[in-house]
Amino acid sequence: MNEYLGKPSGNHQLVLLRHGESLWNKENRFTGWTDVDLSSKGFDEAKRAGALLKQEGFVFDVCYASVLTRAIRTAWIALDELDLMWIPLKTDWRLNERHYGALQGLNKSETTVLHGEGQVFIWRRSYDVPPPALAEADPRNPRNDPRYAAVPTAELPLTEALKNTVERFVPIWQDVIAPDLRAGKRVLIVAHGNSIRALIKYLEDTPIEELVDLNIPTAVPLLYELSKEPSGQLRPISRRYLGDQGEIDAAVRAVAAQAKSKDATK
Amino acid sequence: MNEYLGKPSGNHQLVLLRHGESLWNKENRFTGWTDVDLSSKGFDEAKRAGALLKQEGFVFDVCYASVLTRAIRTAWIALDELDLMWIPLKTDWRLNERHYGALQGLNKSETTVLHGEGQVFIWRRSYDVPPPALAEADPRNPRNDPRYAAVPTAELPLTEALKNTVERFVPIWQDVIAPDLRAGKRVLIVAHGNSIRALIKYLEDTPIEELVDLNIPTAVPLLYELSKEPSGQLRPISRRYLGDQGEIDAAVRAVAAQAKSKDATK
Repeated sequence: MNEYLGKPSGNHQLVLLRHGESLWNKENRFTGWTDVDLSSKGFDEAKRAGALLKQEGFVFDVCYASVLTRAIRTAWIALDELDLMWIPLKTDWRLNERHYGALQGLNKSETTVLHGEGQVFIWRRSYDVPPPALAEADPRNPRNDPRYAAVPTAELPLTEALKNTVERFVPIWQDVIAPDLRAGKRVLIVAHGNSIRALIKYLEDTPIEELVDLNIPTAVPLLYELSKEPSGQLRPISRRYLGDQGEIDAAVRAVAAQAKSKDATK
Repeated sequence: MNEYLGKPSGNHQLVLLRHGESLWNKENRFTGWTDVDLSSKGFDEAKRAGALLKQEGFVFDVCYASVLTRAIRTAWIALDELDLMWIPLKTDWRLNERHYGALQGLNKSETTVLHGEGQVFIWRRSYDVPPPALAEADPRNPRNDPRYAAVPTAELPLTEALKNTVERFVPIWQDVIAPDLRAGKRVLIVAHGNSIRALIKYLEDTPIEELVDLNIPTAVPLLYELSKEPSGQLRPISRRYLGDQGEIDAAVRAVAAQAKSKDATK
């Protein structure tokens, strides 16, 4: 009864979903690895994303999510809508949002007023310039959080540029997710604005200058078709957001505008 | 910060949790593998169970649940209360409720009026007499449900006596859960009245005549201490319900009384 209607024959299906609006998205604060929950709007967005996937006939065999509450709750809500609560939901820290270093907790507009739009744009969108790092002794150091207890301390970031997020994401893709896809599993990944940008960069080998304009809206399913190459490599054939294109374009523009200071948005 | 305070040193910790009240528990209907959701009381019970475990200092490294919604939702709610949404939640059909065959969907009191208290008691509490089986062609045959697609049809029941539930539960215990415990993992299992009775029967080698009086209340955490035997065997040292003992005793009595016909409860 759960037959998937939309699967392109011979290719692999991968759906990426950024979590719904979080309480700090709403307050326009840098979140990173801070474990902030969904806002009530975020709950509704997650529900709508699940309902849309259901309506379009999607079925999944496995779901991956980061270890952060806003992604897991989005996955729970979407799987519930899909009548797929029972499929494996695998959480992994390597799908976490980019670590935002010492910016975590700061308001994006205020940071812009303080450091200037140019600097904040570099921290948000440059490929290899990380924001200022957390101090080792900062209580927010991930080594103090039990969810990272099994990760070697040397691998745990105190800040990350997008480049670092790509680097830590690649092993879970190569060792875990790509083999699932090659085995014919239909995969849903629920992650974050920048971990999804990292995935796209890796899959498409996106030129760095194009990454600047790659903004991922909350809770809009992004469908990849991946070809089955004889080499076993998964080559992206197409990528498109599901749902109303006008709404999606507006949501993408809103993400791009988040760091404008109040002055700048005048 | 999530240090577990209650772990008896050198022994293993295992907590069993029956799902909160379901819509059919409320309507007093035989449920079995029917995928019925929690009632609003069941939501509250699950939340309370999670809060109680949190308050008593429990932490878990892994959670197991059946593939049925009422168990998974109970697990989600409890893990949320425990701030442990991120731990692995592994679902497996072998933790499902006992399959109740053709009785699924029938009201327990009405069935008692129809078939007599003695017959219903045998179906509910005998060890090896299964209720009448579903017909192969019945749409409720588990082979029609995508959540059992990976299970060989020959292993899928059309009815079960408790004995059959014990037999299908043993492999997941031996191959998956016991190795986790021996590796020092703190395990939470969210399952069902009869799959928990099956687990207790297996662990304690409970005499069949004592099983009759073993009634598991909804959403009351049941804590096992298991010894680390040199042979690797896990021997139960103690078993106790967490929480208010008066309330628990009343809940246990209520489960025992469920099949009384209206006449009989006068």
